[in-house]
Amino acid sequence: MIFMAQRPLDVLNRALGSSVLVGLKGGREFRGKLSGFDMHINLVLEETDELQGHEAVKRYGTMVIRGDSVIFISPAE
Amino acid sequence: MIFMAQRPLDVLNRALGSSVLVGLKGGREFRGKLSGFDMHINLVLEETDELQGHEAVKRYGTMVIRGDSVIFISPAE
Amino acid sequence: MIFMAQRPLDVLNRALGSSVLVGLKGGREFRGKLSGFDMHINLVLEETDELQGHEAVKRYGTMVIRGDSVIFISPAE
Amino acid sequence: MIFMAQRPLDVLNRALGSSVLVGLKGGREFRGKLSGFDMHINLVLEETDELQGHEAVKRYGTMVIRGDSVIFISPAE
Amino acid sequence: MIFMAQRPLDVLNRALGSSVLVGLKGGREFRGKLSGFDMHINLVLEETDELQGHEAVKRYGTMVIRGDSVIFISPAE
Amino acid sequence: MIFMAQRPLDVLNRALGSSVLVGLKGGREFRGKLSGFDMHINLVLEETDELQGHEAVKRYGTMVIRGDSVIFISPAE
Amino acid sequence: MIFMAQRPLDVLNRALGSSVLVGLKGGREFRGKLSGFDMHINLVLEETDELQGHEAVKRYGTMVIRGDSVIFISPAE
Repeated sequence: MIFMAQRPLDVLNRALGSSVLVGLKGGREFRGKLSGFDMHINLVLEETDELQGHEAVKRYGTMVIRGDSVIFISPAE
Repeated sequence: MIFMAQRPLDVLNRALGSSVLVGLKGGREFRGKLSGFDMHINLVLEETDELQGHEAVKRYGTMVIRGDSVIFISPAE
Repeated sequence: MIFMAQRPLDVLNRALGSSVLVGLKGGREFRGKLSGFDMHINLVLEETDELQGHEAVKRYGTMVIRGDSVIFISPAE
Repeated sequence: MIFMAQRPLDVLNRALGSSVLVGLKGGREFRGKLSGFDMHINLVLEETDELQGHEAVKRYGTMVIRGDSVIFISPAE
Repeated sequence: MIFMAQRPLDVLNRALGSSVLVGLKGGREFRGKLSGFDMHINLVLEETDELQGHEAVKRYGTMVIRGDSVIFISPAE
Repeated sequence: MIFMAQRPLDVLNRALGSSVLVGLKGGREFRGKLSGFDMHINLVLEETDELQGHEAVKRYGTMVIRGDSVIFISPAE
Repeated sequence: MIFMAQRPLDVLNRALGSSVLVGLKGGREFRGKLSGFDMHINLVLEETDELQGHEAVKRYGTMVIRGDSVIFISPAE
């Protein structure tokens, strides 16, 4: 099998230091600066805001998110 | 056992660079260009739209989707 | 332990090329021609229809279904 | 530890060829002739009926059930 | 680490041949004679009754219960 | 990485023989004397009461709880 | 792959001895002093309060939380 493709963890690696949107199981969404992750897709965000729709409703600062709860990660463009 | 068959990951490999529809647990659906995946069926989509019915309701750009949340991937034809 | 029995993956192997009904967690059902699978019971269907009751409500074409979402696979007879 | 006991898979082995009732997560129940299983408790049933209460509401024929969805298997007596 | 303690599987072992109450995810409860188990806490019960409150509402006979569905097992005293 | 810290299983070990409160997925709570556990955080409680709010609503005696169902364990102080 | 980044477990390590907010699946939130964790992100909190919104509604003392239930951990700043 040839992967003419970018691997999921490479995309996360390129997003380090940038703002990402993270969607969780159950529908909660957080936006913050991706400052770390591991192979389980556990994430570290800085300056994290919880979003409802497009609005920030709570500020958390640093946050470790367990990969098991993550549905998607979308880097800001 | 003889697999007279195409393997699931081979189907994803052939879909690289094409538009795919991705159905998630809980019912959310995304459409985007498949630009990568790994053996856990973690996916990378580009120009990703979230769909409700046949309508695009939100544009995300690049998105990493955890395989654990995926129900199905259907390549456009 | 003697298995006087057919193994689950053998049943899938014999169903290759035939129409199967696939029931998913959460209640969605798809019917399509089984064209591949792997040991995780990830499936490849062709000419896939989503069913509600006995009615096809949406046509998807090729579809990769993650085994983790599958409740049952029933070959047409 | 001494198991003065019958192992779960041995009970399934003795039930091969007999009618079993299978209860799934979410509450669906199927009855059919157990014609195979594997160590993940993936099951093969023949002449499978879906039950609601004591009534058969749908006939499926051969069915592969993923062990992950199974709550219990009860052999007919 | 010193376990001045009884191990969970030892408790099940001592309960073999005795009546146990089994609580499942989703709230169903069964009572029966524990006649076997394995290290995944898959269970074999005999003369199994499904309970609602303190009342037996259905008799199942022999039942194999997948450990993955089990919340607790409580031996009768 | 230096763990200037107590490990979760050490805390359980110190709680052996003492009363603990156990919170389960789905919201049920049990209180009993912790008499054993294993590395999967399967637990053995003695003189177990099910609680609703602060009130004991049912007495179970010995209970094996599968770690997979456990959210938290809090030793009495 | 180069991780120009802090690893999730390192963030937890630096938070030892400090107050953290822990969000669980199902929405419950606890605040306490992080006094230990392991690689499964099982946590030990001291002086743990359950929160509803910003209000402490119940005091638990020491609490072991299974990592499997954790969505996020956010150190106080």
